[in-house]
Amino acid sequence: MIRVVLLGFGHVGSNLFNSLDECQKASVIQIFTRNKIDNNDCPKVVECITKIEDLKEADVYIIAIPDDAISSFSDSLPFKNKLVVHTSGSVPMTKLSAQHRKGVFYPLQSFTKSHVVSFAEIPICIEAEDSQDLALLRKLGEAISEKVIEISSEERQKLHLAAVFVNNFVNHIYHISESYLEENKIPFDLLKPLIKETARKIESLAPSEAQTGPARRNDLKTIEKHLHLLEDSPYKTLYKQLTEAIQDTYGK
Amino acid sequence: MIRVVLLGFGHVGSNLFNSLDECQKASVIQIFTRNKIDNNDCPKVVECITKIEDLKEADVYIIAIPDDAISSFSDSLPFKNKLVVHTSGSVPMTKLSAQHRKGVFYPLQSFTKSHVVSFAEIPICIEAEDSQDLALLRKLGEAISEKVIEISSEERQKLHLAAVFVNNFVNHIYHISESYLEENKIPFDLLKPLIKETARKIESLAPSEAQTGPARRNDLKTIEKHLHLLEDSPYKTLYKQLTEAIQDTYGK
Repeated sequence: MIRVVLLGFGHVGSNLFNSLDECQKASVIQIFTRNKIDNNDCPKVVECITKIEDLKEADVYIIAIPDDAISSFSDSLPFKNKLVVHTSGSVPMTKLSAQHRKGVFYPLQSFTKSHVVSFAEIPICIEAEDSQDLALLRKLGEAISEKVIEISSEERQKLHLAAVFVNNFVNHIYHISESYLEENKIPFDLLKPLIKETARKIESLAPSEAQTGPARRNDLKTIEKHLHLLEDSPYKTLYKQLTEAIQDTYGK
Repeated sequence: MIRVVLLGFGHVGSNLFNSLDECQKASVIQIFTRNKIDNNDCPKVVECITKIEDLKEADVYIIAIPDDAISSFSDSLPFKNKLVVHTSGSVPMTKLSAQHRKGVFYPLQSFTKSHVVSFAEIPICIEAEDSQDLALLRKLGEAISEKVIEISSEERQKLHLAAVFVNNFVNHIYHISESYLEENKIPFDLLKPLIKETARKIESLAPSEAQTGPARRNDLKTIEKHLHLLEDSPYKTLYKQLTEAIQDTYGK
């Protein structure tokens, strides 16, 4: 049984807890947070602490706090030579304090507290300085996910950058469509099946093969019409930029 | 039983046929295409014709051909005063020939021949000049979909524009991520669960509430790091533009 202490109980921490709590091969023995966890949020089955001196002996300490705070927080931990990992996509492993055996345990997903996601499908990207630690992280990862992959800090940063495109940028495009339709009193709900299908399609088709639309077929008439509709809209520039990006990719 | 003739058998036509063929309240009695349909593609249960003179009497003629060809094709139909509709998101109803009772039957989805989608969830946007024709289109729509909505040509064009954002532009962003990861020898598959979850999330959360990421929290350090990673990349401009668009929306 791998003994885990969770340091932080935000979106990542709480989702990680739910998943580890259900698995047979690991056990969360403590959760540390700077502020007391709300009673409703606090898992009944585990000790929640707010004093760092109360930390127990564990096999791995998982830091799940904002990127900016990881480095100094790892410095403040009152022990040495234990396996301490963070869960961030963009922070290099070396940012962890030199007093620890360092590692990374990055679940590639976008978490919200309100929606519990199943970890089974979530890729977990692991990294460690020490090969035994790497083996332990692999075991821990495989206890909750079907996809555990060793990835260097450099690769992880690139993966995180690509994730920003497909998650943050894509969501912003959803937001633009919603705002535009709202302004025109057309229900955004009408687009939801299309949004779902667009995401589903690339499970079996490469995005380049799935590409359709006026820009792809260089349908200048429709593009003109759209630009006209967006005449005084803040979204016109982005429409143009993305249309040109597609035209550049597939040829005008 | 509503008698339907399909004019065109591309992505929309073939998906529409599959759906109508399964429903109880309508029957496709003929499919017309300019060129003979490939034997494997041709549905066994229906007459496929290539001569426009062979068209039979029907309750509704559904044109499912490329946007540019709709107007002149509707002119070439050898009859008058019948209900003729098209299935396009961006072509106004008035582009149909004046010799027909005009209408629109626009299924808001992105179709591929290889993947049969269920029409039950697909919104069908209808429009007609005549109220009886509108009622017939509603009945036809409701025979295959749970969501039939009357929408004017003007609104439909706006809806189609929003669809370009969430379908074509989003897919291009998938493509960019794939290319970037490929260049860096990192498997794109790792992003698929995130892509799925990003689309799923907005079923229960408004896109503005679902927005996360470096641009949303104005994390300039990570943004700088990403721009550095993209130094010589063609995707740098788009990263900047989308990041600025998010910053403008939520405040820097």
